[in-house]
Amino acid sequence: MKIMSIRTDLALETHQHFTEKAEDLSGVKVADKSVKDIEITQVTIETEEAAEKMGKPIGNYITLHTPDLRYIDKILYEKICRQIANEIKELIDDDVDKSILIIGLGNRAITSDSLGPQVTDRLVVTRHLFSHAPEMLSTNYASVCAVSPGVLGITGIETEEIVSAICEKLKPCAVIVVDALAARNIDRITKTIQICDTGINPGAGVGNNRREISQKTLGVPVIAVGVPTVVDAVTIAKDTLSSTLNDAESDMIFNSGKIPQEILNFTTTPKEIDILIKKSAEIVANGINFALHDNITFEDIDIFVN
Amino acid sequence: MKIMSIRTDLALETHQHFTEKAEDLSGVKVADKSVKDIEITQVTIETEEAAEKMGKPIGNYITLHTPDLRYIDKILYEKICRQIANEIKELIDDDVDKSILIIGLGNRAITSDSLGPQVTDRLVVTRHLFSHAPEMLSTNYASVCAVSPGVLGITGIETEEIVSAICEKLKPCAVIVVDALAARNIDRITKTIQICDTGINPGAGVGNNRREISQKTLGVPVIAVGVPTVVDAVTIAKDTLSSTLNDAESDMIFNSGKIPQEILNFTTTPKEIDILIKKSAEIVANGINFALHDNITFEDIDIFVN
Amino acid sequence: MKIMSIRTDLALETHQHFTEKAEDLSGVKVADKSVKDIEITQVTIETEEAAEKMGKPIGNYITLHTPDLRYIDKILYEKICRQIANEIKELIDDDVDKSILIIGLGNRAITSDSLGPQVTDRLVVTRHLFSHAPEMLSTNYASVCAVSPGVLGITGIETEEIVSAICEKLKPCAVIVVDALAARNIDRITKTIQICDTGINPGAGVGNNRREISQKTLGVPVIAVGVPTVVDAVTIAKDTLSSTLNDAESDMIFNSGKIPQEILNFTTTPKEIDILIKKSAEIVANGINFALHDNITFEDIDIFVN
Amino acid sequence: MKIMSIRTDLALETHQHFTEKAEDLSGVKVADKSVKDIEITQVTIETEEAAEKMGKPIGNYITLHTPDLRYIDKILYEKICRQIANEIKELIDDDVDKSILIIGLGNRAITSDSLGPQVTDRLVVTRHLFSHAPEMLSTNYASVCAVSPGVLGITGIETEEIVSAICEKLKPCAVIVVDALAARNIDRITKTIQICDTGINPGAGVGNNRREISQKTLGVPVIAVGVPTVVDAVTIAKDTLSSTLNDAESDMIFNSGKIPQEILNFTTTPKEIDILIKKSAEIVANGINFALHDNITFEDIDIFVN
Repeated sequence: MKIMSIRTDLALETHQHFTEKAEDLSGVKVADKSVKDIEITQVTIETEEAAEKMGKPIGNYITLHTPDLRYIDKILYEKICRQIANEIKELIDDDVDKSILIIGLGNRAITSDSLGPQVTDRLVVTRHLFSHAPEMLSTNYASVCAVSPGVLGITGIETEEIVSAICEKLKPCAVIVVDALAARNIDRITKTIQICDTGINPGAGVGNNRREISQKTLGVPVIAVGVPTVVDAVTIAKDTLSSTLNDAESDMIFNSGKIPQEILNFTTTPKEIDILIKKSAEIVANGINFALHDNITFEDIDIFVN
Repeated sequence: MKIMSIRTDLALETHQHFTEKAEDLSGVKVADKSVKDIEITQVTIETEEAAEKMGKPIGNYITLHTPDLRYIDKILYEKICRQIANEIKELIDDDVDKSILIIGLGNRAITSDSLGPQVTDRLVVTRHLFSHAPEMLSTNYASVCAVSPGVLGITGIETEEIVSAICEKLKPCAVIVVDALAARNIDRITKTIQICDTGINPGAGVGNNRREISQKTLGVPVIAVGVPTVVDAVTIAKDTLSSTLNDAESDMIFNSGKIPQEILNFTTTPKEIDILIKKSAEIVANGINFALHDNITFEDIDIFVN
Repeated sequence: MKIMSIRTDLALETHQHFTEKAEDLSGVKVADKSVKDIEITQVTIETEEAAEKMGKPIGNYITLHTPDLRYIDKILYEKICRQIANEIKELIDDDVDKSILIIGLGNRAITSDSLGPQVTDRLVVTRHLFSHAPEMLSTNYASVCAVSPGVLGITGIETEEIVSAICEKLKPCAVIVVDALAARNIDRITKTIQICDTGINPGAGVGNNRREISQKTLGVPVIAVGVPTVVDAVTIAKDTLSSTLNDAESDMIFNSGKIPQEILNFTTTPKEIDILIKKSAEIVANGINFALHDNITFEDIDIFVN
Repeated sequence: MKIMSIRTDLALETHQHFTEKAEDLSGVKVADKSVKDIEITQVTIETEEAAEKMGKPIGNYITLHTPDLRYIDKILYEKICRQIANEIKELIDDDVDKSILIIGLGNRAITSDSLGPQVTDRLVVTRHLFSHAPEMLSTNYASVCAVSPGVLGITGIETEEIVSAICEKLKPCAVIVVDALAARNIDRITKTIQICDTGINPGAGVGNNRREISQKTLGVPVIAVGVPTVVDAVTIAKDTLSSTLNDAESDMIFNSGKIPQEILNFTTTPKEIDILIKKSAEIVANGINFALHDNITFEDIDIFVN
């Protein structure tokens, strides 16, 4: 009997999955803190055994969980941006002359997959200005460049190939990769932001041939910032069940082999994804802008970003 | 105990729901026919009792079920367009000088709700050409005009108010309303096209104050053409269960009151909705173009539609 | 010999045209004032004779000329919005229960013609909230609704027909029409905002069958707000000449009949029109928001407009 | 006194400029041929002296001039695509295992500059399918990949840096670069297609720091395909004059230093550029598809391109 696994790109959800089953997770540390209206959790995978069990590499995974971004006020909005910035800064070594390459992964034409391109559209990109228009730059702005390379189906090129090619050419001191993620809990869609220092690691067995984008493949630190935008249909069914049945019953149903193929193959996104992803992209972009450009303000950002 | 009902805009699914429960549905007739690769079902609601039970007015509801529009060849594509055209023509009286107003409902900025506006973008609109450029018109083209009035949240105006205002002014001999629908079965999303002669009737109790658009309110026949683009999350869960448990078990779970609020409030659309809805809009628009303009060809349509 | 006339939708430019030629313009009054960085001119056409000569109806035409909106700071941005609001308020009677219908003219799919639809996307629309969600409304917000009806070539319906149909139905106390304009001076493109109380009057002889939208046709006051986005190619040529030759020479060239047809038929817009029109739409929308909703702030607007 | 030069990216127009002035152009050969409704001109720059005078490198520049793409029928449409394909094939060595990298230059968010990205959206990209889905490929399809890297102002990276990075990584046997061009004659906008074997060479003195993309910099043959989408305002003025005045008079005016700065700085595009560039992108993309994939049909292309 094949045991159905639940797909998630969030380390926090993988961790919850095991703790719900009361399974041993030595080698994984979890710390919570709450800043007003933002729940922050840090999952640290410390050993190879834990990494294998979690299906994710050794490293730090910080998760911010926020209220619905459509209904927050300006003060909380700025607080979330600042918190994203702080977490990113924690993970990047503080070099004097930092130069950062930001990669917006995903497909601009598929709304649920367009987080990366939408974030790069809103970044304060400065690398060219150091020579072309230095008067636009305040002291302590980083050298930032950004590319949205497109997806394999559109370009015919593995994302990793393009990213490593650009990285070899530009030799940034760090890379930030932004991507839309899959969650298992619909309540996390565009409400959770995951920031990690392990890059993008599709992992074996997922059937997705997208290759790893990480310090191992690029040679420089790779921070990944992601927001869940999709949930598998079967996960919604499972979560519904687990609120009404006990685990044994729920597992039995899910491993019965009776679930229709069209449900197993169906990945969902909220019907309002257009608005939700726009709000997420803004907040992630501003978090990155704050992280990289010391003392930059929203007004400064408005001047750079049309 | 409140009994949870399953939301669907498809008469066929409502009918299936009752027949699954072996409930009496006298006053509803169902006829199937299959044209190669297109399953066609006609549900006819004949009595007020049946209408009340079905939650839909007396009238004819034709459903075409097609393969995934992304992977069909040109021959099947044309066959589907022709079949849509035939069904629409069956429902419209064949006047010599027909003038038709087409209304594209929905929100252009929310992909899953943009079927109506995307269809109107692809229509062969001719009303103005009879005076401005008659040389562009073949004999037997109808006088067609089309409006996408926008949604209440954007305009501040009930759609029905705008439509009836325009209808009173232009006095068309019939109205065709195009809208995105909700289904209960994810396999119907952008694979089913419903054509009915009862217009748009949101019905009491749905909590949606959008008012009726029908012959009763407009004074002329109103054909509605719809394609399901969303499914409630809770429906996915229910369909998963019903494939593994018996009805009593499944109903018990769903009426237990234990399903989390975020699932109850969550409406899903497929992650590739951008592509799926574009294909649907094309096929519905061409079906309407074929229905209204005798002998028009795809090449003729290309000349009108940029 | 046919005398070529220069096309402009700006009363100010028509006036300048006549004064450059030292022609009599009794019946037209012009007053200038300058608020820091905003030049404001009010042209008042007072007599039928002047109206005929100007090709524009009796009424008030206020023109704001601003610096390039891409490079202004937040303080000037707000000042321009406030000034637009003031001018609109001057032209609308101050009723206690005001209800306003805003019409965004133009074609959303043609960037240079999309000012109207882009403005309506950014308006604080409230009409439906008085019944549906009154808690969202501050005291002294007006009842505002907004429609972008589309253009004749897309809908098959004269804009005036749709607008008058909706107006008869909703019976607003005033209408504001927003549209992209033609100027004769390229320096006015997206730098000038014209606000007038005469509505939209395409005028005889322009060859454009779009009919009048005004108090005469709608029965309520009609304010038009427009921004130039296009200039005829031949006008650019003429303006270039008039900076180097005297009037007689310049006129002789332009009335020689030797100008190539492709130049006469060519209307230009700046290559960066996408950015320019977005900035204009934002500032016009916020001017209208400030005019209609007392004490509304940018933050309030952000909550209403996604 | 500085002599104003006229900007154009078309070798044909540069050549015409000199021949109008009856200047010597030895080292440049021009050959015309006309296929029904398509005028084709081949300009060949053969010597370094001619290259310097023309401001363009030694090589072949083929220009197709077509009727307005909005109004052509299907037969001419296909003929133009086939002709583009033929000209491209003439310039690419016919290797058995050809692998081609296509670069769509320009800014997707600026309509007049979006030719490159719009073309790459419509290409039959196959490189990944040789390993992932070989059943989708007919024999004699080339290995094609495509990237739209974005513009310097958005990415912070010189286009040439990204292109050469990707090129070094993928080692294609040839590169095709697609870009929007400037013309001097408005009648060429989206009616002319230039295909050359010299790549993209912004040239010294243009003030545009975009660096060369050519066989010299990339190490493999570089074909450039371009379509004019913009014309300088001052050029429109000059062309108007040259149709009414003699050259000496016209030159005197243009070199008088009296032309206003806002005209000198203003680059125009047609007001309908949205539609025009969409049509151009389709025809260029299909020309490239036909050139690279032997025996591919429009129907095959439809299956690959959503």
